[in-house]
Amino acid sequence: MDVTLSPTPRSTIQRGKNRAVTDRAALTAVLDAGLICHLAFVTPAGAPVIIPTGYGHEDGTLYVHGSTGAASLRAGAGAEVCVNVTLLDGVIYSRAVFHHSVNYRSATIHGVATPVTDRDAKMHALQVITEHIAPGSWGVARGPSAQEFAKTAVLALDLTEAAVKIRAGGPGDEPEDLTPDRIGANWAGVLPLVRNWGTPEPCEHLPADVALPDYVSLRARRDGPQ
Amino acid sequence: MDVTLSPTPRSTIQRGKNRAVTDRAALTAVLDAGLICHLAFVTPAGAPVIIPTGYGHEDGTLYVHGSTGAASLRAGAGAEVCVNVTLLDGVIYSRAVFHHSVNYRSATIHGVATPVTDRDAKMHALQVITEHIAPGSWGVARGPSAQEFAKTAVLALDLTEAAVKIRAGGPGDEPEDLTPDRIGANWAGVLPLVRNWGTPEPCEHLPADVALPDYVSLRARRDGPQ
Repeated sequence: MDVTLSPTPRSTIQRGKNRAVTDRAALTAVLDAGLICHLAFVTPAGAPVIIPTGYGHEDGTLYVHGSTGAASLRAGAGAEVCVNVTLLDGVIYSRAVFHHSVNYRSATIHGVATPVTDRDAKMHALQVITEHIAPGSWGVARGPSAQEFAKTAVLALDLTEAAVKIRAGGPGDEPEDLTPDRIGANWAGVLPLVRNWGTPEPCEHLPADVALPDYVSLRARRDGPQ
Repeated sequence: MDVTLSPTPRSTIQRGKNRAVTDRAALTAVLDAGLICHLAFVTPAGAPVIIPTGYGHEDGTLYVHGSTGAASLRAGAGAEVCVNVTLLDGVIYSRAVFHHSVNYRSATIHGVATPVTDRDAKMHALQVITEHIAPGSWGVARGPSAQEFAKTAVLALDLTEAAVKIRAGGPGDEPEDLTPDRIGANWAGVLPLVRNWGTPEPCEHLPADVALPDYVSLRARRDGPQ
C-alpha cells in the first residue's frame, strides 16, 4: 500500500488545508478509532441519502454491510458512494464566535462500492466488520446461518481516494483579539470530549456464572470510539 | 409544529421499523443531544459527498454554516441535501454474530437547503448555531465582523421530512440461541459507550486570573454529546 494518500480533485481538501493530513497511517488511525461510519449514496431520483452503519477495513479496503433489502445497499452497489468517519475530540471556545470550532479527526472516502458476492470473500468481510464492532467475538459467537448469510449484503470500497482532516489544539483567534486589553475579556480554550466504555451490562437471559470474556473486559478499560 | 413527524416515502423507515420513532419530541431530543451533523449533497457530476459540520436548530428549522468558498455550501444551496445526526450508545454482543449491533439514537432529515441571506435572519441563525456548539458564549465572545459575516454562508433546512431511529436494550437473539444448552455458551450483553466532557484546557494566551465561566463549567459537569 502507498504510504501517502492519492488525492483526486474531489478528495483534495479545499477548505482548511492546514488541517489536511496526507499520510495513509492517519487514515488507518481514524478508521481504527471510529466505530460507525456515515455512508452516502444518490437515489435514482438524484437525491443524497446518508445512513450511519457499521464497517470494517483491511488491506486498503473498507467493508460495510446491511440487509439485502436495504435501499442503501441496493443503491450503493456498483455506484458512487461517499463514506465519512469522524471522531469529535472537543469544543473550541475562542475570543470571537467566528473562531469557535471543534477538535476532530475525520476521514472521507470516495469511490464506487462493489458488492462482495464470492462466498469466502463475503464471509471474510463479515469477519472483518464483526471484529471491528466487537473484536474477539467472531470465533466465539455463532457464525452466520445460511439464511442469515443470504440476507446480508456486503459492499467493498477501495480506500485509495481518501482525505483526512484533523484539528487539534486551542483557539485560532485573530491577533486583534489577543491584544493586552482584549486577551482576558472572556475565557478561551478547549472543552475536551472524552469517550469511555461504561460498565458491561449482561443480557437478562445470561446465567450468572458466565464470566465476562477478556475481549470485553479489556476493551472496557480502553478509550471508547467516536 | 406538528407533534408527529410527517414521513414521505423516503423518510419512512424501511428497515428495522420497530426502531422507528415517530414523535417530533424524539427528533428534537436527538438534535439537542448531538453536537455535529453529517451533511450530504450531490456534486454536479452526480456523486454523493458527505461533510461533518456544526449545526443548530430552532422552531422546526435546522441551520448549518460554513465558508462561502466551501463546495458543500455552494452545492447544497437550493438543492436536495440529507442531514444525519447519530449518537452511539453502546455495542451489543449477541450469541450470534448476525445479531451483533449497536445502541444508538439517529435522526435523518431530507429536504432542499435554502441559503439564509437576509442580514438579521442570518445573524440569528449564526447565534443558533453558536449556541448549539458553545452554549452561553454568543453574548460573551466577539460577534462576527463585517468581513467574517460575509465569509460565512448559512443554509436552512426544514425539519418536516425527518426520520428518527433509536435502538436501546440488550441483544435480540434468536430463540434457537436461547435454549438451556446454548444460553451460557458465550457472554452476551451491552458494552455501553459514555461521552463525558474532560477538564477544560485554557488557551495558552489566557491570563491566569480569568475564571472559567459558568457556561463552560456547568456544561463540563453534564454528559457529553455524540
